[in-house]
Amino acid sequence: MLYDLPDTPRGLSMKTEFSTEHPFDAFRALLAQLPPASQQAVAAVRARDASLTKPPGALGRLEEIVEWLAAWQDKAEPTLDRPTVVVFAGNHGVVAQGVSPYPQSVTVQMLKNFSDGGAAVNQICATYGAGLKVFELALNLPTRDITVGAAMEARECAATLAFGMEAIAGGADLLALGEMGIGNTTIAAAIYHALYGGEAADWVGRGTGVNDEGLARKIDAVQRAVALHKDALGDPFEVLRCLGGREIAAMAGAILAARMERTPVLLDSYVVCAAAAILHAADPGSIDHCLAAHVSAEGAHMRVLEKLGKKPLLDLGMRLGEGSGAALAIGVAKAALACHRDMATFASAGVDGKAG
Amino acid sequence: MLYDLPDTPRGLSMKTEFSTEHPFDAFRALLAQLPPASQQAVAAVRARDASLTKPPGALGRLEEIVEWLAAWQDKAEPTLDRPTVVVFAGNHGVVAQGVSPYPQSVTVQMLKNFSDGGAAVNQICATYGAGLKVFELALNLPTRDITVGAAMEARECAATLAFGMEAIAGGADLLALGEMGIGNTTIAAAIYHALYGGEAADWVGRGTGVNDEGLARKIDAVQRAVALHKDALGDPFEVLRCLGGREIAAMAGAILAARMERTPVLLDSYVVCAAAAILHAADPGSIDHCLAAHVSAEGAHMRVLEKLGKKPLLDLGMRLGEGSGAALAIGVAKAALACHRDMATFASAGVDGKAG
Repeated sequence: MLYDLPDTPRGLSMKTEFSTEHPFDAFRALLAQLPPASQQAVAAVRARDASLTKPPGALGRLEEIVEWLAAWQDKAEPTLDRPTVVVFAGNHGVVAQGVSPYPQSVTVQMLKNFSDGGAAVNQICATYGAGLKVFELALNLPTRDITVGAAMEARECAATLAFGMEAIAGGADLLALGEMGIGNTTIAAAIYHALYGGEAADWVGRGTGVNDEGLARKIDAVQRAVALHKDALGDPFEVLRCLGGREIAAMAGAILAARMERTPVLLDSYVVCAAAAILHAADPGSIDHCLAAHVSAEGAHMRVLEKLGKKPLLDLGMRLGEGSGAALAIGVAKAALACHRDMATFASAGVDGKAG
Repeated sequence: MLYDLPDTPRGLSMKTEFSTEHPFDAFRALLAQLPPASQQAVAAVRARDASLTKPPGALGRLEEIVEWLAAWQDKAEPTLDRPTVVVFAGNHGVVAQGVSPYPQSVTVQMLKNFSDGGAAVNQICATYGAGLKVFELALNLPTRDITVGAAMEARECAATLAFGMEAIAGGADLLALGEMGIGNTTIAAAIYHALYGGEAADWVGRGTGVNDEGLARKIDAVQRAVALHKDALGDPFEVLRCLGGREIAAMAGAILAARMERTPVLLDSYVVCAAAAILHAADPGSIDHCLAAHVSAEGAHMRVLEKLGKKPLLDLGMRLGEGSGAALAIGVAKAALACHRDMATFASAGVDGKAG
């Protein structure tokens, strides 16, 4: 499924009200009331797992995936009937700094490619029977160049968070997040540099086809952007507003809404993890329902995952974005759940357990 | 699909004739005439890949998988219409040394579980639409206890190799190998110790649920077995005969036959790799058509893969055997091929390539 949406962020979600003093207050309030993992559902899954015709623990992370689905769906019998990849796309003023060899027009061209079913993520979703939704976020109005000003106004940033919250409505039982946006690895690197310190070069990778000169320009842009906004960077929501792209704000909203709606989230790329990093910095427990689908070949992604306390499921040297790694992980999750649901038990199969 | 076969190795394949001086000579001769990778097919795949709407290399190992399929299928447009998991099962006299906490009867019970569709590998195959064939190898006649004598006679070993060659006939376009057999991690460890030296403890892991005492017994058994047969271990086929189980001999035959029939092979577990290690020791190029599907949690598997020059596709902490890791890799391969076949090209999608 592909849905075309208006290309400007809609108004505020019913879930959030900006009558409070600051547009971000509603999101801060939400962070204080996130539902926990269901220990009951996990216990039920573990009890069944112990009865299956295999040695305990022999399916490794496949068992972990089923427990994770149960914990965050709050279902003793977790489902994967509607796994959905949701891709958010944005454009970024920072491309004026020469951080990408591709023209910004590629973002909208690739959106059409998604709609026409021609991108990699379309094929992976088709392989595993996953749904795909793509949302474009005001591509004709790129966010401000972060080396000269804040990417977004506070209300604009909050509205985009709210848009992301709305976007995931529709009953997916597993949400895989993806992104598209020329220049957005620069944006993600700036967010990591702001949140985690170190040198700009520690967080900047080659993104999509950047050569040595382009890499130097990226590092320089990240350094200048973080220096420009340094007084605002103690607050993760301000990091998002000053440095973040719209797709990153929308994904942060989507992660929050998924938690509220009891939908586990598969994180994808270096850029998707920037949305998770904002929430993690605001409240480390807020991304407990997120599993890192893969580690990309983008330089700092593994270090980011370590900061987030996530161990990636897949390591396939991919560096595409568009939710491709998370979509692959849906295939693994389907097999994991099939084992859990459909394997015989020792009793039903007449297989002997361990000798006394 | 599940096929029941007679539980004793059949006679010799039409492909091999034992009129030569020694039963292994036919296999040695085969090693000298293995077909190479198709460079032409790889070139065709690379040309198409370069036209797809993604940056070069952005799909990482998914691109490698498609090249590998093309190279060994000898098809410019590789297929995955009939991926098939083939599981070989054997029983082992070495269980008399107390190397497994499970009774040997579990092997045949699990075979019934495969037939009834109740094992993990059944669910993974069903998830990805892969075929499954299971072959039992004289389960009622375990191989000789390797701590007291050679596992097999030369003709018996050669017949089992030939059986494995026959077993894969039937037109699979991707062969994933799996195994089942109480005690067979001990057999595999003995093969690795014989081929790669070091200490017995370097190669022995806990297999399926072995405690500290059981582990000590496994190490002791491997040490004694390799010491007993030390004069014969300069020849990889003798290693197979003296130490190997029937499932390992059959898998070695299957790997050879797959090469002849232009079928790429996914290696699965610590035990499957013992079959590959025998061939690799006889001729390193003989397993070039094999891709390591995963690295298992069985201690020495990663070191074995390094010896074989293979980088595993998946690392999911699994330690089940029965082809489960290789079956999961079929899911990844299906997505990889779908991307290659069905993605739009820059030209067809009207997406701009890199700016001049």
